[in-house]
Amino acid sequence: MSIEKFKSISPADFFYKNREIAGFDNPAKATYMIIRELVENSLDACETHKIIPEIYIRLRKVPTTPNVYEIHVQDNGCGIPFDHIPPAFGQILYSSKYVLRQTRGTFGMGGKMAILYGQITTHFPVTIISSTGVEDWYLFKLMIDIQSNKPIVKSRRSFPNPSHNHGTIIEFRFEGDYTRAKQRIIEYLKLTATILPYLNLTFIDPDGVLYLFSRSTKILPKPPIEVLPHPNGVDTETLSRLISETKAKSMIEFLQKHFHRVGKRTAVKFLKHVNVDPSRSPKSLVSDEILHLGQAMRNYKFFLPPDAKCLSTIGTDLLIKGIKKEFNPEFVVAVTRPPSVYEGHPFIVEAAIAYGGNVSSPQCPGDINLFRFANKIPLLYDAYNDVSMKVIKKIKWWRYRVDIEKDPIAFFIHICSTKIPYKTIGKEYIADRPEIEYEIEWALKNCGKRLRAYLMRKAKMEIKKRRLLILEKYLPHIAKFASELAGKSDIPNYFKLLKHID
Amino acid sequence: MSIEKFKSISPADFFYKNREIAGFDNPAKATYMIIRELVENSLDACETHKIIPEIYIRLRKVPTTPNVYEIHVQDNGCGIPFDHIPPAFGQILYSSKYVLRQTRGTFGMGGKMAILYGQITTHFPVTIISSTGVEDWYLFKLMIDIQSNKPIVKSRRSFPNPSHNHGTIIEFRFEGDYTRAKQRIIEYLKLTATILPYLNLTFIDPDGVLYLFSRSTKILPKPPIEVLPHPNGVDTETLSRLISETKAKSMIEFLQKHFHRVGKRTAVKFLKHVNVDPSRSPKSLVSDEILHLGQAMRNYKFFLPPDAKCLSTIGTDLLIKGIKKEFNPEFVVAVTRPPSVYEGHPFIVEAAIAYGGNVSSPQCPGDINLFRFANKIPLLYDAYNDVSMKVIKKIKWWRYRVDIEKDPIAFFIHICSTKIPYKTIGKEYIADRPEIEYEIEWALKNCGKRLRAYLMRKAKMEIKKRRLLILEKYLPHIAKFASELAGKSDIPNYFKLLKHID
Repeated sequence: MSIEKFKSISPADFFYKNREIAGFDNPAKATYMIIRELVENSLDACETHKIIPEIYIRLRKVPTTPNVYEIHVQDNGCGIPFDHIPPAFGQILYSSKYVLRQTRGTFGMGGKMAILYGQITTHFPVTIISSTGVEDWYLFKLMIDIQSNKPIVKSRRSFPNPSHNHGTIIEFRFEGDYTRAKQRIIEYLKLTATILPYLNLTFIDPDGVLYLFSRSTKILPKPPIEVLPHPNGVDTETLSRLISETKAKSMIEFLQKHFHRVGKRTAVKFLKHVNVDPSRSPKSLVSDEILHLGQAMRNYKFFLPPDAKCLSTIGTDLLIKGIKKEFNPEFVVAVTRPPSVYEGHPFIVEAAIAYGGNVSSPQCPGDINLFRFANKIPLLYDAYNDVSMKVIKKIKWWRYRVDIEKDPIAFFIHICSTKIPYKTIGKEYIADRPEIEYEIEWALKNCGKRLRAYLMRKAKMEIKKRRLLILEKYLPHIAKFASELAGKSDIPNYFKLLKHID
Repeated sequence: MSIEKFKSISPADFFYKNREIAGFDNPAKATYMIIRELVENSLDACETHKIIPEIYIRLRKVPTTPNVYEIHVQDNGCGIPFDHIPPAFGQILYSSKYVLRQTRGTFGMGGKMAILYGQITTHFPVTIISSTGVEDWYLFKLMIDIQSNKPIVKSRRSFPNPSHNHGTIIEFRFEGDYTRAKQRIIEYLKLTATILPYLNLTFIDPDGVLYLFSRSTKILPKPPIEVLPHPNGVDTETLSRLISETKAKSMIEFLQKHFHRVGKRTAVKFLKHVNVDPSRSPKSLVSDEILHLGQAMRNYKFFLPPDAKCLSTIGTDLLIKGIKKEFNPEFVVAVTRPPSVYEGHPFIVEAAIAYGGNVSSPQCPGDINLFRFANKIPLLYDAYNDVSMKVIKKIKWWRYRVDIEKDPIAFFIHICSTKIPYKTIGKEYIADRPEIEYEIEWALKNCGKRLRAYLMRKAKMEIKKRRLLILEKYLPHIAKFASELAGKSDIPNYFKLLKHID
């Protein structure tokens, strides 16, 4: 019998071999993914550091080779310290996204996958220029050694930065298909601009067309903050790691120091509940005790819920403003739900419904106008498996006096969280967690109620208007006839009466 | 301005943090995934080595802890050499699946994710017992060091193996939910048994119920063979690697040695086409030349198509047998398409349509009875994004005289390939490649045609039967009347006539 050949591969090699799972299915999808991932990295680099984003994208065809494009993305973000540049762009699983914080990127993978894809298809190095403002400008030309998952620095230079500017420029080549990707790319940029009114974005496409999305405000939302893990969501692995790394001398100190929203009083109460001595050293816990402590933490009902301060919502005002700008609807309503939690991760659902105006009815039977956002990025692919679609299909919309397959109605759902449970690394759609389902359902029902009230008011107004029309038509005749009957020559002023009719 | 915190994480850590993308969304889904991944590994370990599979699965509740289960899976597969056991079960991205061969596993990830999930939720080591037949039996108790992605051997023993048996036993604990996973698990096992009539599988569930799937044949299909990459699917990265590793002295030797279906004549013709000297050493090619060579290889139309010998289909006979066994339909038709290729990966599509009998109509409006298989494994989740569903919805079924949403009709699609383009690491659904779409469409249309012929024949038979019934009723009277009229006492034998009616 022959023996199986075993081998170990690097993470870069794994994602190189399986790039579909990161969304790089084909040249058109790759073109979309590259622009999307770079834009999202730029936005994260700005917003988490309270910088008003200014992004410039240029995509051009390389004249010498068919189907090869050159992408150039420039931002005014926080920049990257020069010694981190090679691994941050040339090493898979090296990132600043591996903390608990609401960011667009969650896998720390997109930018590198884009560069990897460029390298695979064209074998050209990527050029990165960056400065944090305190350092000089550094220019790197890099390639990825896929087999060992290490960056190869092809060349390196520095330039003085006397005015302390900061930001990052990235430029590389890839085999793509802009013609087939164009529609999605423009839709993506438009929707991004819709929910980020403080964004200045310029895109020059390969045909030389300039798309300009200008900001309408300079007010930035609060930046998201990094948080500690919530005790209800901790697993045994996390707990063991924290115990092995902690400098806390006692269990009571340990709980307060490493978990979200655990103060002294909660810590004391919880330790009493699990019968652990508060003064005991965390390092003294054995494997079995850690296991039981973890289970108790997951199941204990009296920890405070996660603090939503770490999350950055869009807010109903901005949401409505953005929708009005793009869809000019007859009626729009938005709801921001209170913060909730799944597996210890705080999240907030925001929903909006737009009706009439420039909102069109779904084009094909079975279609639904659903616009999905997660941590302020639009999700355009694979809507049919998404949790939001599932919820919309579950709700009995006739109760709200609408037929979602025929009426001009559009749904907007935004989920923000320190961890969005994406089902794919390409961030195409969101897994259905019961907690998230519940929040979406109530946000939509709440919007639905107000839409129904509007529609009923509108119907009532219709009736009133018709009644008024009739009265306006006949009242003069009645007045005239009545005054004739009373033998008076003056017709009474019936306009006053019309005004009083309700 | 604060500086971003960069850090590098291990692949184990990445998948631990993002287990949704591997299908471990929640306890119920995890229970299903664990059984599925272990069964698929066992089947691969048998079939690729021409062993008739014999699998025993036991899932039991651990009485001391709520929601904790113990899984035990035993197979008679090829076994694992003892020095490979720790990394094969305790190191992510270490596997025997990283070759071009049709196997159920493609990511080399499932078994390890199952073990990882068990460890995260219970902190218990996994027990593995294995022998290749030539070695002793080895027992390992392992845990995974997630942060460094290395196996930790907790204990190790060996037992003599005088009768040279082979196989693997794996056992570990995890937090799960069998009640909610049960239906899917049984459906999964049933469908697996349906398409593998040579499989003996025993499953004892936590309630003590025994499910026995017995084999009906001992004939194994040809095992899949490992193949070289096809030149049409080669990218610059693969080409560079092959050039740096090759021992070939000339380009003509290089092409023949490292690519699928490239013989001397093809190599000469291709090298002439790209203006490369056949005697030139591959190592002398510079970066730009490699890039152009790669592009030329991808676009050259005269390479032979991939050989389907490396693929292992189910075959129409077995497919029909399996469907008849499980669904007992009134009519069933199956088609195996000729081999095709996407991105250099050969693939074959098989499709079947079952009609009537125990096939029920779709239960909810909008539902379609679709059973999907890929490399002989049933896919149960996320059907709505799958390429097969897309194709079925595209076909105008009224042309085939059926209404797929109301009639009792079921579709079966099997795709086998050296690389299935799954969109998720949890192998839930398949990306839509135009080449695969095309093959599915024609397989279904072919089945559809034969179904229509059957339905038309059936309708014609109905008419005939009715006509015969009428004749049978009136012919005796006519015969009697005619004989009376002719003054004869004998009634002519009209049964002969009835037999001749068509």
